[in-house]
Amino acid sequence: MPRVAVCLSGCGMLDGSEVHEAVLTLLALDQAGAEILCCAPDISQTSVMNHLTAKPADEKRDVLVESARIARGRIKNLAEVHANNIDALIFPGGQGSAKNLSSFAIQGPDCRVNADVERLIGEMLAAGKPIGAICIAPAMLARVLGKQGIRARLTIGSSAQTAAAINAMGGEHIECACTDAVADETHRIVSTPAYMLAKGPAEMYEGVRKLVDQIMKWTQG
Amino acid sequence: MPRVAVCLSGCGMLDGSEVHEAVLTLLALDQAGAEILCCAPDISQTSVMNHLTAKPADEKRDVLVESARIARGRIKNLAEVHANNIDALIFPGGQGSAKNLSSFAIQGPDCRVNADVERLIGEMLAAGKPIGAICIAPAMLARVLGKQGIRARLTIGSSAQTAAAINAMGGEHIECACTDAVADETHRIVSTPAYMLAKGPAEMYEGVRKLVDQIMKWTQG
Repeated sequence: MPRVAVCLSGCGMLDGSEVHEAVLTLLALDQAGAEILCCAPDISQTSVMNHLTAKPADEKRDVLVESARIARGRIKNLAEVHANNIDALIFPGGQGSAKNLSSFAIQGPDCRVNADVERLIGEMLAAGKPIGAICIAPAMLARVLGKQGIRARLTIGSSAQTAAAINAMGGEHIECACTDAVADETHRIVSTPAYMLAKGPAEMYEGVRKLVDQIMKWTQG
Repeated sequence: MPRVAVCLSGCGMLDGSEVHEAVLTLLALDQAGAEILCCAPDISQTSVMNHLTAKPADEKRDVLVESARIARGRIKNLAEVHANNIDALIFPGGQGSAKNLSSFAIQGPDCRVNADVERLIGEMLAAGKPIGAICIAPAMLARVLGKQGIRARLTIGSSAQTAAAINAMGGEHIECACTDAVADETHRIVSTPAYMLAKGPAEMYEGVRKLVDQIMKWTQG
């Protein structure tokens, strides 16, 4: 039974993990027979958004504490997660990936990436263990890969601006439908557009399931 | 295309809607071709829980605003939802159902139920339109039904104490596995134990999908 870490970034599409993408990643992993390890960095959220009005709220929330809502309390501090304890790593999307795990939402291709996120991605690459990235999360991944001189095939769907940013960071953006996923066999990296394109959870789930199936295949040899 | 309302109670198993149950209800509805209308009462949460420590947090949050995280911002105030605009109504579980939509968590069989929740359930029953209740939500439903003298077949799985409370409120508790659902054909009410029993999202989803399939069948005649 492969052990797959799911790195969350809060709880809500505008300031944390996109809730549907995170939950359907867990569903696909559980259906595929994986052991799931949820994790998140123990840091403050960059912002708290009112999801009813889509406007900033005058509040402080913590990424690990809010991620625990999605993980049903079973979650580890990302600082304690290492590649030698897991077989694969998946990043669901949501603005938390571009605001908390990285500064992509503000700095674009010049973004910084959270130190523990960057460390764990580096460890996974060095160990040849697969990484999945959903929705906007491939942008942050492209930044870490680009800094290491790795040109990986990645997708965020068809947004010209975000695709250009991925290419600017050293990646190779591939257009993809939300019901599909793009696999980079050389680097064992798979991505799917999810709510960058999907109209609802059913078609989004098709892409997420393909991503998880690819991850499971790679963990088996 | 039947229009199905999903009544949320916040965002998190300890103080709102159970996130997996809510999202997998939306997935099953979308896969079945339903039009989804998320709604929640515009009230303060009874409590805010830190889901990492499972301890109360010194914060105030609003049920409608937090539910919007699960609904991706597309959510209506429950006060504006009426039976003549929808074909079916589903309540996912989570402690929000027993703390925000009702006071079942504190008062048990003597609980009060939110006025708009009680009104909408009454309208649905009067119109012969189906109602689904997941996890602990059947307890609150039993209270409303019992006050109307309706003895409905309901399940929360196999918890002896909660089953006894459902019977005390005038319901008829039926034991059920988390991969199954209990349908009351007479009153068009269906329930499934979900995380009252399920070990993970995959087996929970089997029961939720059966609940949604039953709801869809009833909306078709």
